[in-house]
This record gives sequence, C-alpha cells and structure tokens, in this order.
Amino acid sequence: MEKLLCDIPASRLKSYQLAGRQQKPEGTIVGVQGIEIGGDQFVVMAGPCAVESYDQLVATAKIVQSSGATILRGGAFKPRSSPFAFQGMEEEGLKILWEARKITGLPVVTEVMDTRQVELVNDYTDIFQIGSRNMQNFPLLKEISKADKPVLFKRGLGATLDEYLQASEYILQGNEKVILCERGIRTFETSTRNTLDLNAIPMLKHLSHLPVIVDPSHGTGHRWMVGPMARAAMAAGADGILVEVHHNPEEALCDGHQSLHPEEFERMMHDLQVIGEAIGKKILIPEKETA
Amino acid sequence: MEKLLCDIPASRLKSYQLAGRQQKPEGTIVGVQGIEIGGDQFVVMAGPCAVESYDQLVATAKIVQSSGATILRGGAFKPRSSPFAFQGMEEEGLKILWEARKITGLPVVTEVMDTRQVELVNDYTDIFQIGSRNMQNFPLLKEISKADKPVLFKRGLGATLDEYLQASEYILQGNEKVILCERGIRTFETSTRNTLDLNAIPMLKHLSHLPVIVDPSHGTGHRWMVGPMARAAMAAGADGILVEVHHNPEEALCDGHQSLHPEEFERMMHDLQVIGEAIGKKILIPEKETA
Amino acid sequence: MEKLLCDIPASRLKSYQLAGRQQKPEGTIVGVQGIEIGGDQFVVMAGPCAVESYDQLVATAKIVQSSGATILRGGAFKPRSSPFAFQGMEEEGLKILWEARKITGLPVVTEVMDTRQVELVNDYTDIFQIGSRNMQNFPLLKEISKADKPVLFKRGLGATLDEYLQASEYILQGNEKVILCERGIRTFETSTRNTLDLNAIPMLKHLSHLPVIVDPSHGTGHRWMVGPMARAAMAAGADGILVEVHHNPEEALCDGHQSLHPEEFERMMHDLQVIGEAIGKKILIPEKETA
Amino acid sequence: MEKLLCDIPASRLKSYQLAGRQQKPEGTIVGVQGIEIGGDQFVVMAGPCAVESYDQLVATAKIVQSSGATILRGGAFKPRSSPFAFQGMEEEGLKILWEARKITGLPVVTEVMDTRQVELVNDYTDIFQIGSRNMQNFPLLKEISKADKPVLFKRGLGATLDEYLQASEYILQGNEKVILCERGIRTFETSTRNTLDLNAIPMLKHLSHLPVIVDPSHGTGHRWMVGPMARAAMAAGADGILVEVHHNPEEALCDGHQSLHPEEFERMMHDLQVIGEAIGKKILIPEKETA
Repeated sequence: MEKLLCDIPASRLKSYQLAGRQQKPEGTIVGVQGIEIGGDQFVVMAGPCAVESYDQLVATAKIVQSSGATILRGGAFKPRSSPFAFQGMEEEGLKILWEARKITGLPVVTEVMDTRQVELVNDYTDIFQIGSRNMQNFPLLKEISKADKPVLFKRGLGATLDEYLQASEYILQGNEKVILCERGIRTFETSTRNTLDLNAIPMLKHLSHLPVIVDPSHGTGHRWMVGPMARAAMAAGADGILVEVHHNPEEALCDGHQSLHPEEFERMMHDLQVIGEAIGKKILIPEKETA
Repeated sequence: MEKLLCDIPASRLKSYQLAGRQQKPEGTIVGVQGIEIGGDQFVVMAGPCAVESYDQLVATAKIVQSSGATILRGGAFKPRSSPFAFQGMEEEGLKILWEARKITGLPVVTEVMDTRQVELVNDYTDIFQIGSRNMQNFPLLKEISKADKPVLFKRGLGATLDEYLQASEYILQGNEKVILCERGIRTFETSTRNTLDLNAIPMLKHLSHLPVIVDPSHGTGHRWMVGPMARAAMAAGADGILVEVHHNPEEALCDGHQSLHPEEFERMMHDLQVIGEAIGKKILIPEKETA
Repeated sequence: MEKLLCDIPASRLKSYQLAGRQQKPEGTIVGVQGIEIGGDQFVVMAGPCAVESYDQLVATAKIVQSSGATILRGGAFKPRSSPFAFQGMEEEGLKILWEARKITGLPVVTEVMDTRQVELVNDYTDIFQIGSRNMQNFPLLKEISKADKPVLFKRGLGATLDEYLQASEYILQGNEKVILCERGIRTFETSTRNTLDLNAIPMLKHLSHLPVIVDPSHGTGHRWMVGPMARAAMAAGADGILVEVHHNPEEALCDGHQSLHPEEFERMMHDLQVIGEAIGKKILIPEKETA
Repeated sequence: MEKLLCDIPASRLKSYQLAGRQQKPEGTIVGVQGIEIGGDQFVVMAGPCAVESYDQLVATAKIVQSSGATILRGGAFKPRSSPFAFQGMEEEGLKILWEARKITGLPVVTEVMDTRQVELVNDYTDIFQIGSRNMQNFPLLKEISKADKPVLFKRGLGATLDEYLQASEYILQGNEKVILCERGIRTFETSTRNTLDLNAIPMLKHLSHLPVIVDPSHGTGHRWMVGPMARAAMAAGADGILVEVHHNPEEALCDGHQSLHPEEFERMMHDLQVIGEAIGKKILIPEKETA
C-alpha cells in the first residue's frame, strides 16, 4: 500500500488554526508597494544571489526591471554551508540594496537569519525573507511575527507540507502577511541540486489561504532549467517566482551556475507572459525605450 | 555544500551509449498508428487504471476519445502491493482492450510484467507498458528489446535519472521505440502519494534524445491535483501525459481516488489546449456532434 | 508534527494475514541443511558478489568456511544497472557454485531474476535469493511461492516495511520458508552507497514472525564499514548477515570496493563471536588445523 | 550506477579544515566534570524530554543516576512544530535543572535555540545542546563558538554528513569541544519517526576526530526500540547515547511514547554493560544500596 490514498480529511484541514483555507476561503492577498501577491498578477522577484557591490546590484536591478520584474531580491546576510565561504556584505549590503531601491523604485526582499538582526534588516527591506534552513527557527519566526511587513517564508528542504504550515502559524500569530515559497526538497536524485516539488502548489492552495511562489533557481541548480520550471510553476497555479539573475553569472560570488544571464531572463519573461495570457495571470513587461 | 552544483560534465553525457542526446541531437519521435510521440503533438493517453469489464472500458474509451485523448490505457495484469488485492482480468482483460480498440480506433497501451507474458500481450497491444516496479527487471527489459513495438517505460519510484537512462539501454539494444515516463518518486512527503519530479522533464530532454511523458495521476494520488500538474508538465516541455479516467471513479476497482471524472477530464483537455496554443504543442479536440 | 508518533495499532498488525507476528508469536525458524535461521545461531552467509571462476569461488569458499561462515553466497545471474556491465556467468556459474558446495559441504544461496530461470536455479541452490530490484516483481514471487526451498527475500531500496511485508505474502501463500533481509535503503545521504536501516530489525521482529538478516556490504558500500555495521546488526537483534568476501577484492569483477579481504572477514567473525557470547547468539568458528 | 562506489578521496577529507580526522588522528576527547566523552567510557546522557516540574526532574534524575547515567538531560526551551504546543518552562526550567544538578551532582545538558539566550543558558548548563532544526542556524553556531563549554551538536534531519561536518566548523572556529550526535534522518519510511543512520558512526569517525553519540529515542520514536538501537549504536562504535527517560511516560508533556520507563532504562543499561565489557567500552552502574 502506498501513502495516503484518500483525500485530505476535514480534521486535518481544521488543524491549521491560522493557516488553514477554512480561515479565509477566498485566499489572502499580500500587498507591498502596490503590488498584490496572491491575486491575478504573476509576481516576479529577481536579482542576484548576493549583493556584491553597488555597481553589480544597480546594473542587475535595472536589467530585471526592464524585463518585467517588480521586486528586487539580493542577499546581505548569506547562510553558507561552510564558515570559510563568502558570508555576505551584511549591513553594507543592506545599504546598497536600499540605494538600488531608490534608483529603480523596486521594493526589495532580503534574508534575515538572526533574531538580533530583525530590527536592522527592517530598516532596509520591504519584505523579510526567512530561508529554508530557518523554517523551524522558532525564535526567529516569533520575532518576525511582531513585524509589520510581508514575510517570504521558504519551505525547509526536509520539511513536510504539514510541518511547513504549522511553522507558518508562528508568524501568523502576529503577522498575517505570509508568502509561502516552494524551493525544492531533498531527495535521492543527484542530477539536480534539489527536487522542485510542484505538487506543493495545488496542495498548499488546497490546505491554506496563503499565496504561494516558487524558486526555480534553488529548485533545480541549473541555469538552463530555470525557464522550463518557472513556466511549469505558473501553469500549476503559483502566484509568482523568485529567481536569481546576475549581470555576469560567471563572476558571481555565489550560485553563479544557477543564475540567469540577462538575455535568458528576458526570454523567460516573454514565455511566461504568453502562458499567463492563456491562463489569466498577468505579467507586465515595460516597452523598450527607443532612441 | 549541496549536491552537484555545476552543469552535467560531458563525460557523463557520453556515458549513455544508446540513450544519450549526442546519439540523436534532433530527438526521437516514436510513431504509433499515425500518432507521433516526441514531435509537436501533445499526446494524451487516457483510460481506467484497470480493465474491469467490456461496458466499463468501452464507455470510458468513448469518453476520453471525445475529449481529445488519442491513445487508450487500461491494465489487464495489475501489480498490486498485496496478493489479496484485485490482480487484474489478465487475458480476458486484454481481449476487452482489443475490442475497445476496434470500436474506437484508438491504439492501446497496457502493462506487461512477466517475460512469459510478452508474446501474449504482444497480440493485444500497440504499446507495451513497463511499470515503475519493473524498471530494473532486466530479463523483462531484454525480452522487450526483441519486440517491434513502442515501449512506455516508467521511471522507478526510487531510481535516479542516471539509473533510469542506463536501464533504458537494455531495451534500446534491440528496440529504439522507447518513451520515457516520469510518474513520481518516493520522498518523505506524505500528503501526496508520490512527489512528481517535473525537474526530470528538462533534465531527461537534456541528457537524452527520447520522448518524455508524465503521469500526473500516480504522481499526485489526488484527482483534483491531476489538472494543475498536467498543465505544469506541458509547460515544462513534456511530450504528453498518461492519465487515469473512469466513467464512475467511486466504483473503480483500483485507484478511484486519483481517477478523473469524465467532465474533469474534458475540462483539463480544454485547459491544456489553451496552453498548448501558447507554447506550440498541439491538442486536437473533436467537435461535439449536434443532433 | 513528525511522523507516526504512537505505537503500531493492532489493526495494522492484523493486516499481515500471513507475515504478521500474530500468526506465529514464537517466531519462524527456517532450516537449511541442518542450519537454523531465526534461532539462537547467528548465521553468516559469505562469499563473492559474483561467481567469476572455479578457482576464485572454491578459494573464497574455503576461506569463509574456515572463519565460521556456514552458507556460501555467489551470484550467477547479476542484475547490473547497465547492459554493458558484466552480467554474470549464468548457468556455468551455477555449476561452479554446486562444485564449491560439494567440496566444502556448505549450502549455497544464489539469485534468481526471471520466472523462466526458477527451474534451472532450483537444480543448483539450497536457498533462492530475490534481490532488492525484484521485491515487487510479483510474477517471480508467485513462481517462487511454488518452490519447496528457503527464500532470502531482500527489501527494495525504496520500499517501506509495510510494502515489504505485503510483498512477502506473495511468497508465503505457498512457501513458508521466507528469510527477510535488510540491505540498505535509498536516502539523500551520498557518502555511503545506501543507508542501512537497522531500525528495520526490531520493527520487522515486532510486526512479523519471519527471521531477519542484514547485508552490511550493500548497506554501506565500503569495506571498512562492514565490520562495525555487522556488529551493530547483531546487537540490534538480527539473526545473521549476508556479506561479500573475495580472495582478492582489488581484482573482483563486481563490488570489489565493498568486499572484505580474507583477514578482514576473519577479524570480523571473531568480533561477532565475542559480542554473540555476551548476548546469547552463537557463532562457531572452526579450530585452526596445526601441522 | 549507484552512488559513490569508491572510498572517500583524500581531497574530501582534507576539505574539513577543522573537523577533519587528519587534524587530530588520535581523536578528540571532550571532558565535562571529570567525564570523558570520546574515550573508553560509554557515556549515557538521560532524562526527560522536557523539564516539567521540580518533582518530575529530580525524581527522574535520581532514577537515571542509580542506573548508571552520568549526565542529565532536560529541555527548558522546546522547539515544537506547532506554536500551540507546550513550548517549555524556559528560565524557570533552567533553574530546576540546576537544582537537580546540585542534588545529584550530575552535570546537565540542555538546548539553546536563540542567539539572545546563550548567555542565560550558559549560567545553568554544563553542555549546550544545538538541536537538529538548528544545525544550520549559523548565527547561533557562531555565538556558541565563543562559549567555553562543550556543545552537543545534533545532525539535521535532512543534512548530509558533509554538510554536518562543515557546519561543525562554525563552532570549531572558537570552541573545540564539539560532540557530534546522530539522531535519525528523514526518509520515506513511516513506521518509525526517523531512520536512525548508524552508518554515520563509522563514517563520522573516519572523516572526523570528534566524538560521536547517538539518540535512539528520536531516531526511532518508539520506546520498545530504544534498547536494541542503543545496543547497536554501541556495537557500531558510538561513544555514548542520549536517551529520554520519564518517571511516568504516560503523563509526559512531550515525547512520552518514546520515553523509557525507569525499569526499561535499568534493563537497557545492564544490557549495554554486558556488550561494553565484550568490546572494551566501560559503563559503571552504581551498586544498589541495601537496607
């Protein structure tokens, strides 16, 4: 007999006191600077893995904006497997992020890893990101539940959807603006960095009222797979994507192999726009300026 | 450090002597009764999990045909976890399948599990199906390599893509008509029957020249997830789907919970047609007859 | 919430109609040539991965016998991931195995993979081995259920214990002499070939009346880990082990890296004897002949 | 082809700059209050999952001490999947723990989850515990690296051994007293709470110089499996165990199903002592006082 063969019992749905679909059958829309996540827009958050310099970030920000991204991503505090790897520019990185925000007008999302950093990061971000390694860092979730800003909350790579939704309730106790994010789970398959679990999209939508976005960069680990999996995420019902783009991936300080070149990002956005038109999800790509 | 961070090295690609993309860079198209799998058609194989009776199969066959399926599926030999579960109608089921083929004109696909059954099944099918439990049943693969018919070859639920492509070479030694099929892998997640690994679509297309289809019924285990995941499979680049439909799922002898109702199947086909138009994959849905 | 937090419910135990502990609370002892598997002996089955030649097998057989092994293993039909790898000596290998049996008096265990081979293998073995890839090869299990010889039945690398016990009932319908064998499962961990699931020993003993042995060679994939994990298997309550030994592992045609050198095997047997004395499991090591 | 078939290459061993075996070939012994972890003692850390009251903790502490435990465990800050579950007694729990330490003389180990709690916990513990959910909580590891006390550092349930050892180097940068702890990983198997990966014992000993203990309570999730798996851990070469004991498990506020009854703990300790004598690992069980 394989696993769970019947539909989700009502008792299980009821068990999510704050995240459960029954709390808000129409679904939650999280707003940030006029952008609505969870509605009929398909929201694209793009930018480099890590903030590396003012020039790098601003260049990349302009590129992704010109292709239709509406939120800028970039890490200042980087969780790295080894202490001997680049750990991020920290506060200086946050300041650069804020500069890029001013120049482009794009709201920004950046990761926070430590309860003691929440206040600092709060000064420089529109959306807090909780990374997959911290999905069950409960003191951090409790601290973030006190903030009045949206939270991009990534699924842990070894976490069931049940644990994921339970963990979201640590934030939801004080902060309703939670955006779920599937970013790949850990399986036995080794040809991809992670296994992107797109089943999670309809299942999370079924169990919960929260918006769901997908990270095809970490979910695959290969630049050339990001486009197909972004399209798949849209077709499965995701509300947006989080994607790594670098103006020069070969020189990126982290995750260059999975970061899109600017022209790859542009092509992907056009592909998404076409599918979006077919299924009713909007992507607005700015017209190119002509000389 | 997470898994494999760089792109697939050339040496690995080269290791697939028969299945490797370098053997046929343009890709393989498998033809069956005028249908081309691996080309610009999106091929839909649909029907019940198991052949249960003449009436059941013919009713379902007509339904799926009228909504655009071009190949009929149905199991006569059923691999069941327990010996005390329904094991299929065996030869009688094959004969009913062949009857339904005559009536509808749809070519059929059915599973073979035993080297000793290959000859018998050969008399009643257009496509052999090798199920996930038999992906590394090498004597069976060798026997099928002698057949002159297409083979729908499912990935094992605990098999890496590397093992999958290596196993395909047991068939490819004598029979070039191999159709790969992702049907979900086994992970720690329990809310779905399996984890449908859509990463496998671009990766298999990258590594191999063989066509790739997806089984969203086994890949999810929930009827209401089949539509979204079929759309995602198409958007990720699959060449078709294999899907369970029953004219009355509540009374199905097996897998009823994941079998589509006729009207659900019809709706899914229309959704797929719309996305297919956007991305250049064709689905032809017959016009409804009017009185 | 993590998985199954409470003890196994009675209803689940009852679900194993033939394999369930309640069928035979005292436990099953499988006898072969006077050796009792499932009693107070700790049974060691040892020998090369594959039969390679008369000289190789007889040399290895004498070595393992002199260190206390009481059953000789050796594959004649080898399930290999790639069709281009050594596939075993087939019938010639079986004949060599039978010769080694005559010379040493050790009963033999060898794998059968095809329903059509059962009759042939039956002529040359004392114990049939069903490999992990064939755990759900139901036609093969049904064929083996007609045999009147013990079956060493390996767990599939992606199979739950529930599926494993259900599959055992295909054999138990006609043949009560089933020996279970944990040989490692597939997980995300890559430093070992598989993850040896020793939890399976007490759990299988709890759920079922069948004897349980462990294969630390495949369960680790590293020669130097075989000893510690064999000791652990014994301490957890296993009834024996299946272990790969080669008189010259560096030249083995398969699995040399995980095959023990003769002197490593001898040391392991002494270690096991010492622990066995402490916990009441017997291993008899023949006295060395003196000149 | 299955995973990594050859032995660990030297380059990989070298990659652990601080945790690698080559740094300290003879192995590290971590001392706490005269107890040596990593030497020829088999160290047993026992106590309740959570500190619930003064009476509960002191009763349990006396029980485990009388059966040979030399370190007392007990959680004051509890990481719970749901925010609606018991979260621990926090500072009050720490104070009770310290009381029990005074009464029994047993050094204590307790979990710290938040960088802001390190100073507080430091006042009330002999050993910091980093739980599996925080294995990659890098700010916490950096904070702990500044402490001058031993750290019981649990493996994450989705972490490879490679990631585990890399994470240990965040602590080792400032604090050499790291004790590794295998506590079960997440796999597809559902009959046990986790899959206790005993392969990790010889592999970690091979790769690293750090002591390794095992948690059979979380690694199985079933009280009746703790004894067999503790014995297996010892036989595989572990330096000790961490085990949950409750004076009345049926009324425990958390993890009662996997907590040992006092008499079960006593029996397990005697079994371990017997095996320990056979393999050269010491457990000292105090003589019973007689009236």
